[in-house]
Order: sequence, then C-alpha cells, then structure tokens
Amino acid sequence: MTANDPTVKPSDQPSGQERALHTREATNPSSQIVRFPEGAPLTLSSGRTFGPFDVAYQTYGALNAAKSNAILLCHALTGDQYAAGDNPVTKKPGWWTTLVGPGKSIDTDKYFVICTNTLGGCLGSSGPASINPSTGKAYGLDFPVITIADMVAAQARLIEHLGIEQLFSVVGGSMGGMQVLEWAARFGDRVFSAIPIATAPRHSAQNIAFHEVGRQAVMADPEWRAGRYLEEGAFPKNGLAVARMAAHITYLSEEALQIKFGRNLQARTQKTFSFDADFQIESYLRHQGSTFVDRFDANSYLYITRATDYFDMEAEFGGKLANAFQGTKTRFCVVSFTSDWLYPTRESRDIVRALNAVAANVSFVEIDSDKGHDAFLLEEKVLFRTVEGFLSAAAEARGLTVGGRS
Amino acid sequence: MTANDPTVKPSDQPSGQERALHTREATNPSSQIVRFPEGAPLTLSSGRTFGPFDVAYQTYGALNAAKSNAILLCHALTGDQYAAGDNPVTKKPGWWTTLVGPGKSIDTDKYFVICTNTLGGCLGSSGPASINPSTGKAYGLDFPVITIADMVAAQARLIEHLGIEQLFSVVGGSMGGMQVLEWAARFGDRVFSAIPIATAPRHSAQNIAFHEVGRQAVMADPEWRAGRYLEEGAFPKNGLAVARMAAHITYLSEEALQIKFGRNLQARTQKTFSFDADFQIESYLRHQGSTFVDRFDANSYLYITRATDYFDMEAEFGGKLANAFQGTKTRFCVVSFTSDWLYPTRESRDIVRALNAVAANVSFVEIDSDKGHDAFLLEEKVLFRTVEGFLSAAAEARGLTVGGRS
Repeated sequence: MTANDPTVKPSDQPSGQERALHTREATNPSSQIVRFPEGAPLTLSSGRTFGPFDVAYQTYGALNAAKSNAILLCHALTGDQYAAGDNPVTKKPGWWTTLVGPGKSIDTDKYFVICTNTLGGCLGSSGPASINPSTGKAYGLDFPVITIADMVAAQARLIEHLGIEQLFSVVGGSMGGMQVLEWAARFGDRVFSAIPIATAPRHSAQNIAFHEVGRQAVMADPEWRAGRYLEEGAFPKNGLAVARMAAHITYLSEEALQIKFGRNLQARTQKTFSFDADFQIESYLRHQGSTFVDRFDANSYLYITRATDYFDMEAEFGGKLANAFQGTKTRFCVVSFTSDWLYPTRESRDIVRALNAVAANVSFVEIDSDKGHDAFLLEEKVLFRTVEGFLSAAAEARGLTVGGRS
Repeated sequence: MTANDPTVKPSDQPSGQERALHTREATNPSSQIVRFPEGAPLTLSSGRTFGPFDVAYQTYGALNAAKSNAILLCHALTGDQYAAGDNPVTKKPGWWTTLVGPGKSIDTDKYFVICTNTLGGCLGSSGPASINPSTGKAYGLDFPVITIADMVAAQARLIEHLGIEQLFSVVGGSMGGMQVLEWAARFGDRVFSAIPIATAPRHSAQNIAFHEVGRQAVMADPEWRAGRYLEEGAFPKNGLAVARMAAHITYLSEEALQIKFGRNLQARTQKTFSFDADFQIESYLRHQGSTFVDRFDANSYLYITRATDYFDMEAEFGGKLANAFQGTKTRFCVVSFTSDWLYPTRESRDIVRALNAVAANVSFVEIDSDKGHDAFLLEEKVLFRTVEGFLSAAAEARGLTVGGRS
C-alpha cells in the first residue's frame, strides 16, 4: 500500500501471505493444542454449553517436579499465545519478549511460562474462524458470544489438563489483566500470585463506545458478508483496518502522539493540498490498519471486543467488587501507567480498594510514563523491575528455590 | 433502523427524505446566497484560484444605519448557516438557538447576526457537492482542498458585499473558533471583538488521528465510488456513519459518557449475548451515525476535516503564534471548558499567552463543565453570561447604544 495515495485502499493490495498464514493457523495451528471433547463442554456465562473446544498454547521454560513454578500469561485484545519466541504469522518476536525470556523479569530459566490463545481468538483456540464440527464450515456468527470469565474457564481446563494444581502466578495486561482478576476471583485457591497490569474491573462507557465504532466499521464493510466471509472467500479488510485505526488512538497517550508525530509531515516538506497521508500520524495509522488485517480475524475482533465490553466484575459479584475477592489468599501486584487513558489509574485504584476491603495482600505501583496504555508492551524498566521484584518475593514466600526447580 | 439488530445497517434504511433535502440544499439552497463571479476568484492557501463561488448565509436581527452592530457567527465542523431559527433539512431548531435570539446572550434585538455556510460545506456555499460550472456535474474530488484561512477569505468577501466595514464581533466554537482567530489575524481592522470558544491554535496529532480514521472510514466504503457517488446515484452512508460515531466520542467527556450512559442497558434488563446494541451508549452512537448521514455530504466531511487538520497558526505566521496578532486592537474573550479533551484548556491558554505577548485586550474564562467539547452547544449558563457580559462591555466601548440602532 502506498500510504500516500488515498485511492489505494487495503482492498487493492494483493492478498497478504500473512493472512493466508493466519487463516491456516486458525484451523491448523503450529502451537500445541488440546481438544476438550463434546462430552466435557464449557458452560458459558450466557448459559449455553459449548464443546468440543480447542485451546492452543505455547510454553517457555520447564515445569519443575512439584509443578509449582508455572506462570500463566494472559494476552490482550489482539494478542496471541506467542508471548515469547517468534510468531509464525508475523515472523516477528512475540508480544512480550521485552518481559519474558531467559534472565528476563519473567525468567524462563526459573519459571514455566504458559500462554494460551484466548477462546474466541484466531490462532488455534476455538473461535469464529474455527471449523464448526457440526457443519464443517467456519463458525462465523454461530460461534457463541463469550465473556472474560469464559476465556478463563477454558484456560482453567488447560491448566487442569497439564496437572498443575496451583499457578505460581497469573500475569496479564489490558484484557489480559481482566483475565487475571477473573482467575483470582473464580479460582483463588489455584492462584498463588496475580499481576493485573493496565486494566480495569469493568469497561467504561467510553471503552464500549470505541469498541462499538470498531464493530460497526467491520460490519459496515460489504465484504463482511453478514459474518460469512470465510465461507465466501471474502474478507472485510477495509472495515477491520478502520476499526484498528480507531482503537490504536486509544493505545497511545495524547502526549505520546504529540512527541512521536506532532504535526510532522511524512516524507515531504510541504502539505500536498490533497487527501494523501501528509502527516506522519496519518501514515502511521494507515500502516497499523493495513498490517493488522493480515494477522487477525474480523469476527474474532467482534467477539473479543464484545467480551471486554461485557466485563463488569462488580455486577458479576453481587454489585460489590470486594465480593469477588472475599477470603483471597492470593498475593496481588496491581500496576497502572500515569498516561493510560484507556484504563486510567483510578480504575486500578478501584481494584486496590476492593482488595484492601478484604484485607488482601496487595501492592500497587503507578508507573510514570508518557507512553499511554501501550506502555505495558514497551521497554519500560520500572515495569520490568516491579514484576521481577514481586515475583522474587512471591517465589520466596512460596518456597521456590532461586533455580525454580524445587 | 432497529438499533438492536446488528444486521440492519444504515444502508438498509429507506433513502431518507432528509438526505434528499440536503442534496437539494447543496445546489439550490433556501438561504440567501451571493455568487462571486469568475472574474473575482478566491486565491486559496494552496496557491490555486477558485471561482466563481457561492456563499450561502442567514441573518437574524437588523443591521443599524451605521452598520456597526454586525456579529458574524462561525459554525463548527458539521454545522451550517442555520444558527438560529429552524433548519430546513433537519426541521429542528438551529445549532446555537441556546445562545442566539431575541433577548438571548447574542441578542438579535440588538445585533445583526450573520452566519454563513462555510466554503467546502454542503448547504449552499461552494463545496464538493456543488455543481462545477465547467462540467455541469458535482465537483467531488475536483473541488480544491481548502483551509480555515480560505473559509474566512470567502466570509470576508460576503461581509464586504454587505457593505460592513467592521464587524462588531466574530464568534464561534471549535472549528468556528479557528475561523475567529483567523479573522482577527488576517482582518484585524475589520474585527472590533472576537470570541473564540473551545478551540485551539493548531490541530494536534490526536485531533488529526481521529479525523484520519473518519476519512478512511468514508473512503473505505465502496459506495464512496472514488468520490463520484453523487454522479453515480450512490452514497457512502455506512462509512460516513462510522466516521461520525468515532468523532462523536471526542465531543463528550469520558465523565459525561459515564454519567449519561455508564453501563446502562438499552430497553432490556439483561445482556443478550449477541451483537445487538445492548448498551445505551451503543444505541446512542448508532443513532448519531445514522442521523448524520441524512444531513451531511460525505465529501464535505473529507474537505472540512482536512481544513482543520491543516490548521496551524504558528506555522502560518512565521513559527510564532504571537506574530498573528501583532498590533491588534481587537478585544478578545477566549473561552474553554474544563472537560474538553478535543481542544483542552491548555490550547486556549496558548492563544491567551500569544495575545498577552502582544499586549492585546484579552479576557479568558475556563468554564467548569463535565460535558466535554460539546458544552459550547449546550445549555451552559456560565457561557451565556460570559458572552453577554463581554458583548455588552464591547458595545459600550464601541459606542453602540443599548438598542443597538446607533
């Protein structure tokens, strides 16, 4: 795509090799995968049962004999199980290689790290792009609407399958942080420690609004074909690209956008008086949109945004957030970033307040950053030190030896 | 449109009577109109000349004999010349009837109020939906890319045409406020007083980002037909609706959204576990999108957002905002709102600082409001009192009698 030519839309690009890969990964993933049979379905928040279902996952490091050193990572909205190592679709390093690896803050020499593709996702766990065994075609909109709790229930089944009675830690940012909270609330005995980062106990009206714009952009694209694009050999690239562009604005702070792009022109010295991408910020957003459509399924985007919009732990636990954590023995480390306007610090404080109300073991760190919400994915040394320090202390409390092999 | 059915898109609606009206108004407006002949073209910021061109306008109140009581109102992005009275397209009251009318803050018993449809607009002033006299078809993308300065230049020609040597005041919010600043900078001698409200001296990276998402949404819609939809009897309703939805989020504060909608469900007691508009905020945004497409031209949306993105008075005046106002005798009243995150108070302060640097007569009011950017269009009594008080004092300084007939 020539970002400068407004008439060249993503739809005019040759069908990306990456997208072919991602379509293949949805039904035939490179990951390890566990299929839970029809006889052992999930009971979803909606009341429906769903099965058989697949959970695709990656692991890093080695599980110790006591099975006491496992850390579950929960990915964000458009993340996947490739937290470390290379991603087979994008051929790029995993989304949390900054934090996860040998000798890093989540040290795979010490810990056994598990990351699943979320239920509803598109890289091997059951989602709308998966084959519906009862029709032999992609589920599309026949996939059930799921919640964060359903995602966690599917993960819990995998952890059982792996024979791990208690996770040493559950860690995640953004939507991953919601899953961390849900794990601690629903399976407290199975979570020794929990690190919810840059997240919130509920989705605000503004959060829902941005997601609804994205969903409408996807569904407005005629190539969405009422959700049946995979059957019909189509793909709503344009709509999904617009959805990604809108969402991307919320991932960066206003300050970060100003510092990174300001009003700088893109590869030109003067305004063109046209609809070209004169400004760097325009070129950047177009790039974000056009690369995203090659790695993500449009219906997955609908389902996963819906799950986060439905997320409201207060409503889920009798109108009081503290109820979710009553009697918890889990050790918490809650992290927020000063310039995150998607899930601002005050929402992390709501979590901390609820935990304090039940006398939980909780530390809270607000990290000074101008990078906005995306700070949790970036080279943020205070985050690295915070996670490493918290895990070390938790490891000591848990009686894990430094080598992590106890 | 059944807001609750995701498969019912704006494109499935019967073609609105309003849209037929708006298309007619673009070429054959109900407003007064002045056509400036080909021999007296505008020289645009791009260096191109443009003519003949039309300026459609409305007036309220009576011009006094001295022609000293004229107030020019400048409308915002998707506004029009119907500031007061009824709008012939929407059949609703004008956009500033809260502020403008007999006995109101901008008192049409005292002042002669003029409001033009901006150049690039779609209710009678020359814009992309107007007929290009050299082809007999709508301009579409053959319309020149214009700037805020060009809009003001067209207005200035109308004011000359009306024989008004000096405007008693120029008043506007948001994009209208940018025009106010441009008037004061370019035609200082012709502006006795100026009230820029909820505006900025330049468009930030985040502002540009939101506009670019909107433009991409419009251009991604196949019904945009590379800008030639009017010729081809089409209209990019879906894309324009998505653009409006994204923009609308920026018009309200996060707090206002939370207070107004929160996580309230829309006409139901339980979540539907579907992609229906379960939440009030979703239903509201869909409504904003679907009503907008019946009253506004998609290409106008591209041109006018582009004009605001190009707006940067500092760059325009030699890299120093104060240069724009050197030697000004205009009296300024700068107004911002605490919860406006589209054009936050700090940007109004930049204007005030530049005015102070040239020892201008300036008062600055930051109004405490939780309504966000849209506060300037709402029932905001502090705004009413501020405008009324400032105009009264200016009238006294100008020697206008209370009756405004001197």
